[in-house]
Amino acid sequence: MMLDTLIKNASVIPMTERGLVLYGTSVGIKDGKIAYLGPDCPEAAEVIDAKGRVVMPGLINAHAHTAMCVMRGYADDYTLQSWLFDKVFPVEARLDERAILSGAVLGMAEMIRTGTVSFSDMYFCQPAVAKAVERIGMKANLCNAVIALGDGYDFDADRAVIETRKLLEEYGNTGAVRADVAIHAEYTSPPEIWRRVHEWAVKHGAITHIHLSETAKEHEEAKERHGLSPAAAFCKYGIMDTPVLFAHGVWLEDEDMRLIASHGGSVAHCPVSNLKLGSGMADVRRMKDHGVNVCLGTDGVCSNNSLDLFEEIKLSALLAKGEALDPTALPAYDALEMATVNGAKAQGRANETGRIAPGFDADLIMIDTLAPHLRPIYDPIATVVYSAHGSDVCMTMVRGRVLWDGNDLLTIDIEDALREVESYAMPIVRGE
Amino acid sequence: MMLDTLIKNASVIPMTERGLVLYGTSVGIKDGKIAYLGPDCPEAAEVIDAKGRVVMPGLINAHAHTAMCVMRGYADDYTLQSWLFDKVFPVEARLDERAILSGAVLGMAEMIRTGTVSFSDMYFCQPAVAKAVERIGMKANLCNAVIALGDGYDFDADRAVIETRKLLEEYGNTGAVRADVAIHAEYTSPPEIWRRVHEWAVKHGAITHIHLSETAKEHEEAKERHGLSPAAAFCKYGIMDTPVLFAHGVWLEDEDMRLIASHGGSVAHCPVSNLKLGSGMADVRRMKDHGVNVCLGTDGVCSNNSLDLFEEIKLSALLAKGEALDPTALPAYDALEMATVNGAKAQGRANETGRIAPGFDADLIMIDTLAPHLRPIYDPIATVVYSAHGSDVCMTMVRGRVLWDGNDLLTIDIEDALREVESYAMPIVRGE
Repeated sequence: MMLDTLIKNASVIPMTERGLVLYGTSVGIKDGKIAYLGPDCPEAAEVIDAKGRVVMPGLINAHAHTAMCVMRGYADDYTLQSWLFDKVFPVEARLDERAILSGAVLGMAEMIRTGTVSFSDMYFCQPAVAKAVERIGMKANLCNAVIALGDGYDFDADRAVIETRKLLEEYGNTGAVRADVAIHAEYTSPPEIWRRVHEWAVKHGAITHIHLSETAKEHEEAKERHGLSPAAAFCKYGIMDTPVLFAHGVWLEDEDMRLIASHGGSVAHCPVSNLKLGSGMADVRRMKDHGVNVCLGTDGVCSNNSLDLFEEIKLSALLAKGEALDPTALPAYDALEMATVNGAKAQGRANETGRIAPGFDADLIMIDTLAPHLRPIYDPIATVVYSAHGSDVCMTMVRGRVLWDGNDLLTIDIEDALREVESYAMPIVRGE
Repeated sequence: MMLDTLIKNASVIPMTERGLVLYGTSVGIKDGKIAYLGPDCPEAAEVIDAKGRVVMPGLINAHAHTAMCVMRGYADDYTLQSWLFDKVFPVEARLDERAILSGAVLGMAEMIRTGTVSFSDMYFCQPAVAKAVERIGMKANLCNAVIALGDGYDFDADRAVIETRKLLEEYGNTGAVRADVAIHAEYTSPPEIWRRVHEWAVKHGAITHIHLSETAKEHEEAKERHGLSPAAAFCKYGIMDTPVLFAHGVWLEDEDMRLIASHGGSVAHCPVSNLKLGSGMADVRRMKDHGVNVCLGTDGVCSNNSLDLFEEIKLSALLAKGEALDPTALPAYDALEMATVNGAKAQGRANETGRIAPGFDADLIMIDTLAPHLRPIYDPIATVVYSAHGSDVCMTMVRGRVLWDGNDLLTIDIEDALREVESYAMPIVRGE
């Protein structure tokens, strides 16, 4: 069998076994899948020499609002109330499809350059974004979250509902682009709406993406409203009976974690955003002890202001240690697992991506571990987690196709993308 | 007057006034100093076009053990006890001057590439490191900390004492390289030793660099030993009567902060290291409210594992917000001030560096704000703090001399530096 691509001489972190690094190893790719992993160099149409470099699974950003890239740095250091109601919501009401697309493309450019291959995204105009994702060649689970506030709410007229139906019709739950369904949060819709969203999840085998217990206020007010925490309320109405991806989980209690774990649910930990908005610090170690599948997300750049998952990887490891006053909490491998294996599971892609193993899609990245700030190297896993940044990613491949070769984005015209954001979207954001 | 260098078309963050950004501005340099700041383009021997880029003061790393670069990634995720006694101390006992120099040079390479122009360093073999700093063209305040444990301690035979005396003789407190004096920490020497170190500080006008209240254990045990917190104990013995630079300050109480502030002392906040070693999170906002001059440090890479101050800048802003549950805590400008103006003050260089203003040394950096992950830009200060990394620094200049031009380190042979670390020092670290 002639391979399409062979990456040779790599230090491979396959993420198939704790702490495992395969030195001087080749990864062979055929028809977008990993067809060989081992010490030999089978024949291939194209050979990439990875000498001195680390090859690992591409990263998975499990909670993003990618198009918010148009608002990067637009609203920092405000109170949460002012940030949302004076800044973010008014801008979002002004953004049209073209502006949103421009932000989504810029965000994908940043994600690809910093080693992310797949993302779970909650935002507007997702049918249009889906086409851009396909064209660019990433993977994504896309949703537009239902928000049903006020008496006049009309489910069938809701843009989020219309878009979700369109996504569900056009995309299944098996391809590179998938339709998730989404409840924005406990406090932004009543249980009868949750049940309607859940019906989609049942019918289409879709993952339900939900903001959960991000702030103390939200968590406590749910108890007044339902006599239950947000997680317990969602559980009561059956929402966790299908796969659920919760974002944040900063204020989860032990019982919430038990419920999520027993239902096989996932929590996307977003440490940068949670700190920046003053929401707090999620207790990742406790979630993991309870058996929750914890993955990582950047949230939108407006509360970050970056889509570089390497920041979240390092910060999640650091915060767990700092909170527990224990330097052995959340070791490097666990942090990396959150960004790969666990993210894949949260996206319903556990057997498809997040690992380098025969049969998995060739979704992988190469890290330029020859760079001086990454040397010397005693343990490539520590190097990747504690020393590397997204800027050290010198190759990003999705389904065997190189999207970033260390110099150029091969499927995005970045100058055009920047022009769209700055000439078209920026004046809209500014309200000009 | 013909300038040596003119940097034109820059977005300048001068750090002379809260929030100030000077667009389309030129910085003129003559004899290593800033001679012009304004909209015009006076004649210069060399012109650098900074169109679309941010120019700001070079960063100051106020607490480092630079040579520990030879141990990058050697000992992660261990308990503090095991990290120190099984890993770090045995290695340090084996490191000779050549190995230490190799680590110091690699560390300086990383600092220069990531925008640091000056650092306060506590380690061994500092007279040799001082010569390397001079040759490479950075600024540094160097010290070797006195540790006096056990009955047999002989002050005059102590390597740290011998090196400190040499540094004090060879370097004053006004040049690019300066001699600081150092007490390692409260728990590693008795007050009679502190007084001897303090005599140097008085005689030479030197800054005293001290690890302070890094861990809860250290802080509480001092109270048992002295009936006083570490800061109060140092104050009692007069150590704060000359300028003091404390590192960490994680467990400081209000009274400690008041003492440090009233003596004009500085605290180098090292958030990455404090989290990674499980030491805790210093309360920067409370320190600043008390009037303490808070600056930033990376600590050694063995507990970081990076010398990129941009990480500390962003993390200090994030942690302050997360701890206070208040997104307005420690705004971007304050975080940047800690890494520039406040660091300069902590080094005794308040009128020399940390700002872009006529008469100051031309210690400045340029950030490639044309990079996609930094765009769009609504506020360059937010861009620098929340989106930029050290890898976005495309020029580092110290006293008017370019040390990094975005492609090459002009005063370090990086291949030779890496060879020294990996061929010479790495086997020593590994005990081979």
